[in-house]
Parts: sequence; C-alpha cells; structure tokens
Amino acid sequence: MSTSGFTVGVLSEDANGERRVALDPDAAKRVIGAGPAVLVESGAGGRAWFSDEQYQQAGAGVLDRAAVIGGADVIVSVSRPDDAVLDSLRAGQVIIGLLAPLTNPDLVRRLADRSLTAISLDQLPRTLSRAQGMDALSSQANVAGYRAVLVAAEHFDRFFPLLITAAGTSKPATVLVLGAGVAGLQAIGTARRLGAVVSGYDVRPAAREEVSSLGAKFVELSTAISGAGAGGYARELSEEERSAQQAELSAVIARHDIVITTAQVPGRTPPVLVTAQALAAMRAGSVVVDMAASALGGNVVGSEAGRTIVTANGVTLIGATNLPARLATSASQTYARNVAALLKHLTAEDGSMRLDPDDEITAGVLITRDGRVVHPGVAAAMGGPA
Amino acid sequence: MSTSGFTVGVLSEDANGERRVALDPDAAKRVIGAGPAVLVESGAGGRAWFSDEQYQQAGAGVLDRAAVIGGADVIVSVSRPDDAVLDSLRAGQVIIGLLAPLTNPDLVRRLADRSLTAISLDQLPRTLSRAQGMDALSSQANVAGYRAVLVAAEHFDRFFPLLITAAGTSKPATVLVLGAGVAGLQAIGTARRLGAVVSGYDVRPAAREEVSSLGAKFVELSTAISGAGAGGYARELSEEERSAQQAELSAVIARHDIVITTAQVPGRTPPVLVTAQALAAMRAGSVVVDMAASALGGNVVGSEAGRTIVTANGVTLIGATNLPARLATSASQTYARNVAALLKHLTAEDGSMRLDPDDEITAGVLITRDGRVVHPGVAAAMGGPA
Repeated sequence: MSTSGFTVGVLSEDANGERRVALDPDAAKRVIGAGPAVLVESGAGGRAWFSDEQYQQAGAGVLDRAAVIGGADVIVSVSRPDDAVLDSLRAGQVIIGLLAPLTNPDLVRRLADRSLTAISLDQLPRTLSRAQGMDALSSQANVAGYRAVLVAAEHFDRFFPLLITAAGTSKPATVLVLGAGVAGLQAIGTARRLGAVVSGYDVRPAAREEVSSLGAKFVELSTAISGAGAGGYARELSEEERSAQQAELSAVIARHDIVITTAQVPGRTPPVLVTAQALAAMRAGSVVVDMAASALGGNVVGSEAGRTIVTANGVTLIGATNLPARLATSASQTYARNVAALLKHLTAEDGSMRLDPDDEITAGVLITRDGRVVHPGVAAAMGGPA
Repeated sequence: MSTSGFTVGVLSEDANGERRVALDPDAAKRVIGAGPAVLVESGAGGRAWFSDEQYQQAGAGVLDRAAVIGGADVIVSVSRPDDAVLDSLRAGQVIIGLLAPLTNPDLVRRLADRSLTAISLDQLPRTLSRAQGMDALSSQANVAGYRAVLVAAEHFDRFFPLLITAAGTSKPATVLVLGAGVAGLQAIGTARRLGAVVSGYDVRPAAREEVSSLGAKFVELSTAISGAGAGGYARELSEEERSAQQAELSAVIARHDIVITTAQVPGRTPPVLVTAQALAAMRAGSVVVDMAASALGGNVVGSEAGRTIVTANGVTLIGATNLPARLATSASQTYARNVAALLKHLTAEDGSMRLDPDDEITAGVLITRDGRVVHPGVAAAMGGPA
C-alpha cells in the first residue's frame, strides 16, 4: 500500500432485514489488488454466507465495528447507514452506498452538516457505457426481478408449466409483467424458464423488441402513448394518459393468473398500474406482486410494503420490499462488483482517492462534500443549494 | 340418478394446514355425469380457490357439514378424517382417502370397529396400467417434487441459472436429487427448468435412463447395489449396503449447493441418505430439503418435520411436510381426477357401488368392511387378521 493509499471499511448492516454486504470476499480481493486496504467488521458477511475467514484469505483485516470505522477512509454500504453509524463517522470521511438522496432529504442534510462526503450509486449516469459495471440499480433490479417470480410461485397454488401426467393435463400459468426495465425483463425470463406463458407491457415502445426476444408476448394498448424519458427511465405519465391506459390494462390484467409490477420512477410516487377495479376483476387464486411497494405508495391500489394481503375475491397481493436481501449472496456479489468498479474509477494513479467534479461519473454520484450538497438534482429536490 | 345410485360427500379438511379438497368442481361434474350425486360442504374448496358457486354450477349440492355427512353414502377425503368426522359416520358408510393404513393401525382398528368401509388410495396396485389414472400417490408426489424445488429456491441465496450481466457472471446452482421416483423426477425437471445444473441418484439402476432423459447427470457409486423392489417402489436396503453408499454419497453431497431427498418406503422408517457427516461437509449457504421428513424420521439426520433449521456450518435444512397442500389447486385437481377415476371403477352398471373383492384394484384399496380388516397387508402389519 502506498502512503497515499486509502482504506475501505465494510460494516454489518442488519437493520430492516438487510442481509446483503457491500463487499464480498472476491470483490474485497479485487479492491485490495487495485491498491486500497480493506477492513471488514466481524460477521458482516454472515447473513450472505461469507465468513470472516474468507475475508481474511482475501487479504482484508477483520475487526470490530469501532475499529473498522476508526481505520477506514471510505465506508462502503448497501443501504443507508443507521444513525449510530452516522454519529460515529468523522468529518471528511467518505460513505458510498445506495442512499436514495432524492427521497431522503433529512439524511442528505445530516451528511452535509457533518461534513461527510456522500457518494450514492443510485445517482449514477446509467446511460454511459463505461459506467455499466458500476450500475448497482441494474444489478439489484436484476436480482429483484428473479426473486419476484419465486415469490409469486411460492404463493401461487398451481403449476407454472404445462404438465401432462396420468392424472390429466394442467394448463400453464399465465404471467403478466408490467414494466420491462431490468427487473421486468429478468422477471419475464425467469417466469418463462419455469414454464409459464408470459406477456410483458411497457409504456416505452422500444421495450417491445426486448420483451419479444425473451419469448414473451408484448401487450399492445390502443391507448398507448410513448413514455420514454431521459436517463434510461420511463418518464412520468400525465393523469389523463394514465387513466386511459388503466382502463384498457384492467381487461388485460383480469386474463392473467399472475401479475408482477415493476414501474418505479426514482424519487417519485410510483404510478398506479393495477386499480381496485382491475384487482376485483381477477380470478380467485391469482397472485399480484407489487415490486414498487414502498412508503411512497406502489403500482397496485391497496398494496402495503412488506405485507401479503388476500382480497375479498381471493387475489393474493404482495407488497414486495427489498427483494435483493432475499437473494443475499448473489445480490451482494453483484453489488460488490459495482462498488469495486466505482472504487477503481475513484482511485488516482498514486493510490489516493480522486473526486474530480469534471468527471461525468463522479459528478453524477457525488452528493455532499465539505459541508455542502454538491449534487444539483438533489439540491434542487431539497429546495435549492444547501 | 337411478334409485340404486349413490351419493358422494366432500368435506372441508382444515386440519394440520391441509388446503386441498378431494373433489374440485371439474371432477365433481365428471362424477355427476357418470351417475352418482355429489354433496359438498360449504367452503370445502375455498382454500384451494374453488367457490361454492363453482360446485353448484357443476351440479353438486352445497350444504353444511352435518347435511353432507347425513346425505352421503361415500365420503371422499384427501387425508384421514378427524375424530369428530369419524364419530359422526354411520355403519356401512364408505370413506375414500389417503388413509396411510400401514402407519395408522389405531385408525384402521377404529374404522373396522365402527363397521365403516375404508378405501385407501395409497394401497393401489401402482404397477397396473389400468390403475394409473387413480394413482394418487403419484399425482401428489409429482406436485411435491415441483414444490420442493420452489422451497429450495426460496431458501437459497443465489440465482439458479447461469446469468451473464454487466456486473459479471454468476455460476448456475448445482442441485442433487436423491431418489428418482415420481417426486424426484419432477424435482429434477423443475430444477432444470429454473436453470440449475442437476444430478440425480437412485438405488434402482433403471432410474439412470429417466434421469438422463431429463438432462440431468446420473450419479454412479462404485458401491452401488440394486435396490429395485416389488410394486414399483425401491426396496429397503440392508444396514451394510446403506452405510457403504452413505460414505460415498457424502462426498457427492458436499459438492452440491442444494440437495433434495425423496426416498420414502411406504409404512417404513425412511432410509438415511444424508448423514451428519455429509451435512457438516456442505458449504455455508447450501440448502437441503428432506421430503421424507415425518414422525417416522427422514432422509436427513437432524431434519425435523415441518421445521427449517440452520446448522452450525450454515446449511439450511428443511423438513418438508405436506408439500401438495402448498400447491393446493393443482394438487386438488389431480387428486380429484384420481378419485373420480376410482369412483367410476367402483360404479356398477345399475349405478350402485360395487366392491368386488376379486377385482385386483378393489382388493388393493379395500382396507375395512363389515367390521373387519380385509386387506391382508394391513392386517399383517397390525399383527394378524382383526
């Protein structure tokens, strides 16, 4: 390690059922190979099945929490650090994670007030091809899309595939995926693998080809209006556009056994895709997984984040939250690769950390520095520069 | 309905988490079309998502429990009726279900003492091709094998399929299925569908071809001894045979992420296939599903029926019980087809119920009649004719 090199710290994150860890032993080894030292809190990887011994073999130091915080220049985390961790960080220390700054103004203010340097992976310019290896929203959405299908299958009381046995033929399940981003496409692929007949829908016409290439049917609405927006996200639709689509979608929804909704607009209330009327028209035994369910609302009327409800007409409605934590090993491995790629990008030739505001990636992810909210979009969402 | 026709009754079975129903509306319609009348307890199909209205549309009468018991000549059930139901039946009434008479001598004695006619589908001569449509053990094992893979996937913290993304490549999960009967073959097929690399093992050499035809690798043991037994089941191995196999199997088990055990010998203690030593050699994050877990023991040392345990070395061990109840609609539909086929077989030309002891199928399933245990195998297991 050069004298200018920095040290990365990894903490255990057991709040809110989190089971992921920000660096797995493989990624820790990769980071160490590129220069920085790595310190890991004892047990940090345990809930994703990584042992302290594996981190030590990767060249990381395994210490208690206070020693990791004390020795680290940069803390890498999956979700936002809890209050006790924030209180124990010192001015100038860097924190990297999925901090959701647009929906957590209080956290951002606190990070700025404490003169912490906050870097949030969810603000990455996702359309830059050189940033793809750091795209944690994509890697975790991919995990969530896979997991959402397993959650649906777990609650569905019929076979997914067409099965022909001595006791007769069972029809394949019909699955509708609303929103064909990363999560939606992985959900389509997984439901297809399990043998379901799958349809996909998205307001962006460009999604048609991706949906079709996975062997699913693309749902065409006569009321369709392009919803392609900036930065690779779907744009928010107007109230009128939404209601015309909802009416037509409701009829499509009622024909399916399983509906998985994936429409999230970062920092905004998720659009309603499944209305109360659409739910009421579904058959008993149907399953709806709302991947957008959160404190901000969801894609399904009546869904509650973290809860499973059975409606009066027998539809099981699942407000799925933090699905990546339920595939903790794969989610941690892919997230850790994103973190390692970002750390590499931020490492100067002399081994120090370089935060160049003229670099498009750095400018995208840098939220607070030297007591200020430096990210224009976040500052604007908070009502002007801090 | 002819005056000699009989009436079939279907009760709600909510004991022990049961969610299946012995006849679904489709099968009820089929039964009614063949002659018998059908009475269904209100709500009996609700947990498998069949409504009273659907039964009525099929031509069945929907009544309260007492009226169904009072009006039915034959009660069809999934598992053994509870004590309250048994007490309310009258001499000469017929009960058809999966009664597991070999392991429930007290129940059999009680059925005989009350002069009930008990017919148990688990005693069907399974190798008779004309009995295949009545083979409820097979239809339910098929459901259980599918569900076991979903249970494993639910507890496994990595992707099943090989996935190549911007955040790197994830290796496919490796799944080992022990026992290649109906449940094992469906588990192999389902794990393959989900994208895992699958191996299968069975003591019967004939299973090799079936395992291979599903795209799985057949595990060869140098200590292999044929375990093919009578009636289509695996025979019970000697202690010595078992221990030689276990030693070699342990090494194979440790190389897999997921192990699903399916070895049941009806009415006997299930053979141990995964020893404590084999479990201890598995990697953290591995998952073992013991489909044989029951009050009689299981295929895995330390498994407990109905419980999920994490071992000291991080292996999640699931004692899976009544998996068909967790796919209640498909399980009920297939079971109901088996019941309808048996009812048809037992219906004479004049519409009456015919229990011909010279018929191979009838002789196989008939357990008690006119106050006696008439099934030789069951009588022998109980210590001689009653």
